[in-house]
Amino acid sequence: MTTHYNIKMRKMTAPLIDKYRKLASFDWRTFKNTIEGEEHVILKQKIVDKMKAEPVFQRDFRVLSLEESREISHKRWKKICEWNLFKDPYSDVDQFHALVEVLEGYDQGNAARLFLHANVFGAAVKSQGTERHAEIIKKIDNNEVVGAFCLTEISHGSNTAEVQTTVTYDNGELIFNSPNIGAIKCWAGNLSHSATHVVVFAQLHVAGKNEGFHGFVVQVRDPITFQTLPGITIGDMGSKPGAWQGVENGWLKFDNHRAPLIALLNKGCDITKDGKYVTSFKSASEKQSVSLGTLSVGRLGIIGKGVTASMMASTIALRYSVARRQFGPIKGVENEIPVFEYPLQQFRLFPYLTASICMRIFQKKFFEHFTGYMMRVIQGEKSDELAKFSREIHALSSGAKPVATWLGNESLAEARKACGGHGFLHLSRLNTLRDDNDPSMTFEGENFMILQQTSNILLAKSKSSAKILTPMRTMEFFNHQPIKFQGWTNDTISDVLQAYRFLLHHLIQKTNSDAEILKKSGKNAFEVRNETQVHRALNLSIIYSENTIIEWTKEFLENEVEDRNVKEVLRKVLTLYSLFVLERHLATLYISEYTTGGQFGDQLREKLRSSIFSLKNEAIALVDSIAPDDFILHSVLGASDGRVYERIFAEFQKNTKQPEWICDLAQFLHKNSQSSKL
Amino acid sequence: MTTHYNIKMRKMTAPLIDKYRKLASFDWRTFKNTIEGEEHVILKQKIVDKMKAEPVFQRDFRVLSLEESREISHKRWKKICEWNLFKDPYSDVDQFHALVEVLEGYDQGNAARLFLHANVFGAAVKSQGTERHAEIIKKIDNNEVVGAFCLTEISHGSNTAEVQTTVTYDNGELIFNSPNIGAIKCWAGNLSHSATHVVVFAQLHVAGKNEGFHGFVVQVRDPITFQTLPGITIGDMGSKPGAWQGVENGWLKFDNHRAPLIALLNKGCDITKDGKYVTSFKSASEKQSVSLGTLSVGRLGIIGKGVTASMMASTIALRYSVARRQFGPIKGVENEIPVFEYPLQQFRLFPYLTASICMRIFQKKFFEHFTGYMMRVIQGEKSDELAKFSREIHALSSGAKPVATWLGNESLAEARKACGGHGFLHLSRLNTLRDDNDPSMTFEGENFMILQQTSNILLAKSKSSAKILTPMRTMEFFNHQPIKFQGWTNDTISDVLQAYRFLLHHLIQKTNSDAEILKKSGKNAFEVRNETQVHRALNLSIIYSENTIIEWTKEFLENEVEDRNVKEVLRKVLTLYSLFVLERHLATLYISEYTTGGQFGDQLREKLRSSIFSLKNEAIALVDSIAPDDFILHSVLGASDGRVYERIFAEFQKNTKQPEWICDLAQFLHKNSQSSKL
Repeated sequence: MTTHYNIKMRKMTAPLIDKYRKLASFDWRTFKNTIEGEEHVILKQKIVDKMKAEPVFQRDFRVLSLEESREISHKRWKKICEWNLFKDPYSDVDQFHALVEVLEGYDQGNAARLFLHANVFGAAVKSQGTERHAEIIKKIDNNEVVGAFCLTEISHGSNTAEVQTTVTYDNGELIFNSPNIGAIKCWAGNLSHSATHVVVFAQLHVAGKNEGFHGFVVQVRDPITFQTLPGITIGDMGSKPGAWQGVENGWLKFDNHRAPLIALLNKGCDITKDGKYVTSFKSASEKQSVSLGTLSVGRLGIIGKGVTASMMASTIALRYSVARRQFGPIKGVENEIPVFEYPLQQFRLFPYLTASICMRIFQKKFFEHFTGYMMRVIQGEKSDELAKFSREIHALSSGAKPVATWLGNESLAEARKACGGHGFLHLSRLNTLRDDNDPSMTFEGENFMILQQTSNILLAKSKSSAKILTPMRTMEFFNHQPIKFQGWTNDTISDVLQAYRFLLHHLIQKTNSDAEILKKSGKNAFEVRNETQVHRALNLSIIYSENTIIEWTKEFLENEVEDRNVKEVLRKVLTLYSLFVLERHLATLYISEYTTGGQFGDQLREKLRSSIFSLKNEAIALVDSIAPDDFILHSVLGASDGRVYERIFAEFQKNTKQPEWICDLAQFLHKNSQSSKL
Repeated sequence: MTTHYNIKMRKMTAPLIDKYRKLASFDWRTFKNTIEGEEHVILKQKIVDKMKAEPVFQRDFRVLSLEESREISHKRWKKICEWNLFKDPYSDVDQFHALVEVLEGYDQGNAARLFLHANVFGAAVKSQGTERHAEIIKKIDNNEVVGAFCLTEISHGSNTAEVQTTVTYDNGELIFNSPNIGAIKCWAGNLSHSATHVVVFAQLHVAGKNEGFHGFVVQVRDPITFQTLPGITIGDMGSKPGAWQGVENGWLKFDNHRAPLIALLNKGCDITKDGKYVTSFKSASEKQSVSLGTLSVGRLGIIGKGVTASMMASTIALRYSVARRQFGPIKGVENEIPVFEYPLQQFRLFPYLTASICMRIFQKKFFEHFTGYMMRVIQGEKSDELAKFSREIHALSSGAKPVATWLGNESLAEARKACGGHGFLHLSRLNTLRDDNDPSMTFEGENFMILQQTSNILLAKSKSSAKILTPMRTMEFFNHQPIKFQGWTNDTISDVLQAYRFLLHHLIQKTNSDAEILKKSGKNAFEVRNETQVHRALNLSIIYSENTIIEWTKEFLENEVEDRNVKEVLRKVLTLYSLFVLERHLATLYISEYTTGGQFGDQLREKLRSSIFSLKNEAIALVDSIAPDDFILHSVLGASDGRVYERIFAEFQKNTKQPEWICDLAQFLHKNSQSSKL
């Protein structure tokens, strides 16, 4: 292509990235294997290599139309099914998770198509159905059907218990209805075109009585003609940003659709042959509490999305910062220094780099705990300790999912800005990634709403006078008196944790005492909860989650890292992360009277700045240890060889076609020039 | 369309928005006219009405391809030219600004096409050219040519003085060259397809000597065939987010392109007939200082973009918050309350509503000052006072542009999240608006970089022992001793301003003293400046800008508002805004030892919360007073009638076509079911 332009180019300066790599004190591969686990790294690379070899996974930088996005997403999903990498998400859990992780880096839309059928739809049938549903479960695992998950309605997202879709038992059959516009199901991925079946949640009416919120599995289309069945109307929700353009989020309206009784997902409930509703749960809240922990699986997955987003953002922005030179101590283009050298650029980017590493460690630990918990649930254990485990998982996932998804989006936004103008090009992939990760902040519980779940559990615990012991030990702070600032030690991480413990106690006390005042003034429980969120319960949930991330990363650092160099650099990473998050709560620390006087805050900020500076020589090697394969990253600015400008210009040269309307423009200019002569 | 689905719908509840409107204590039209100016409101509405009547301005919610975006942008630009609303941007300044403001709300891409030719390209020729360029200026104003502005190069954005494009004088002609890939011009809007002419900046070489950075106006294409001229290659930069997809940001490479000497924009310099370079400027820095203030025009415009973005975000999110009901004190869908009622939702959205109002007032005031300044420049005044004016405009525009553009993007991001899932639909327009406003943070000076300009000027001023008097009086704080916290008065706005003044003094002192330490340790000026940005000079620039916004809004409130109700509500608005921005600096306030002890911060946050609460009954009417016409807003969630769900579903019904690849899916499912039977 280059010759076409007959451009004689002076040789560009060789990329500096290898020079920066050599500054590191550790081996990036050892670091990578330590953080991710060597087997997991190999598993992921095998999948990447399979993708690289398949034509259907090749891509360029053209923005696809909605129609094109969906067609290619279907083709890629089919190819993945043909690879037959797993039987179901739970029997081949490592393989499945490696696959989803790779796909999420590659294209969230492709990941969603797979995950929504195999895990969200499939898991709902498997966990809420019974042996009565063996046939459909076999078809799900065998990809003989395509499933969608219909919970949200046009006017009901957060308050799912109040969905308005109705299912009425009628003489051995179930009649499905959407009573008004607001009750139409929506946001169901895979639904618009592909789904043959859906899991749908609705109010179950039996013998004139509303028995409440229940799940059903319903066939919606003929699997040969793909015509919708009688009483069912399905359509698409239209365009969405980024890779979600490729996800068929559909809407579904029921008009007296009749389905056999087998549609009821009948774990713990049923309708007898003589038309009576029976249940083994004593109450709706008992039913809910059993599922509380298991429902966290989605949130755990989304924590991973936030981490992946932040890793990709750091990779693109930091590699480009090494390539891009602007200004220098002396005038002249030859004296310009990489923007990576600027303290402000480091300040903007290094914290997110370290956050992504600490949160990956946290996420893996959390997943281990969760897997242990799920094993016990599946084995049928019913103990107080397991119920406690369930609540703790719920509290932590409801806090960490917002923290992780905000992190992901913040990282991408800051990376985009720190890359200047070229960050805004589609070639950078930064804007697309931000769009791709944006809905994570909303789905599986809107972030602000689920943060209330965390604080509710912590505030309830705070009323107990007994020693607090929880399976994951995230609430140990309750058993230790908060200690005011005693001066900085050599162990900054422990200093930060001491401040975090103080904040936790302060916010619990403050939220509780403000709630008491409101109660005394006659407010009801709903009002009291709503009026103690801002600056209090909300911050409590965030701080609890960050505290756990720091504690778990510290445990990992101390107990699970063998390589001495990796240990040292990981300590730097965690030190920076913990100072970064604590600094965000500096005002609250002062309000809590952890200490008084300007010195503490001044020192905290100085420590943060010097901690950032101490990572300068390590940053590019750290990026290598978290960066996905160039094929997955798909960014002109972030490729591992650092040859940014050559890549940009190679892409630019693909766009030289003049559009047809140029004739119209030429005529318009001509007309204007003629009329000016008159 | 509805009948096609045969859907019987229960009547939706009537929208609540009118109920909320009635709660306000003031008349929204009076408020609008007070803030915007009645004539300006009328001028804008006339343009909106013209657009509504033209087929070419009609649009739906389909995402256009790159090609479609550009074609429609051309057609709309042509229509606007045919309306003949202004002769040039400066002779019809009110008309031009009303037009640009309307277009920016409608589509940033359409606005850019107009603005880049008429103002950015045109103003460069007019301000840097001489009578020698009368012919081309006539053609610009008459739309006989299309112009683009070529400053940025592939490897040079911020450090424009070091652009590498060369222009060599040769025997009465100029030879243009791009010596390497990094020197190729890029990011020039209108260039890819439409431009017939460009203004280009390059290093001018005369008789073997580099005379430095100069501007040139060059023809690049034949206006009939649109073929590029010899030695010129032009292409497109490819896809970009949002409305910028429709802007032809192009790249341009010169290979020994020859142009006549008239191409040189020769104000203050020239090449004589015998090939000698002459200039009336004593130095490059003198040349630069003359243009410092005038260069602010772009930044002033961008402040407006940030304000408009924040206004649209507030409109969409707050109107939808009234329509969307979730949860309530008692179970049952009929007891659900609008999410607008939640203190957390108010906390997330009201501050941006108030910020957009205060910043609009600030922006108008700034523009008045700027116009006065420009008149004096054009009249040829050369005084110390005018030079001082120039520097102050430069300082303030370099600080306020980042503050305003961050505000715009934050508002849109928070609005998107506060609208839950539907905020992510293209129908909401929130994501598109965020993409549209994103580059404002980069162009006309990357935000972090230009903030240095502000602090550089303030720090230089701080070294002076004389009383500091500046034309816009933004630096009055220098003449008043900072006073520590004395307790809260009834005048919260003044309390906040007192704290701001303290912060300004603290940050100047801190930045200066840290710079001294670094200097003594042997660092050069470049290093010292870079190493005192984080937590110091950077914050100084932001705080100086916010302080001016609060002061000017306060002056407006006290001196220019006649209607008593408007005055009262505007006081509430400014109180909230000033508490909101001050709270963000709470940690720095503590570090500065403005006061000690937790009480101050606790009270500040309590004041912020009660200030938010006090705006609850006014918020929807305030939205009406800043909302653009529904036709411009183009958001299903933000329309003025509040009928959100009907509009959503009406749009949903447009998407029911099944794609062709469904046959392939059916075959795949069938094959899987056959093989499972084997």
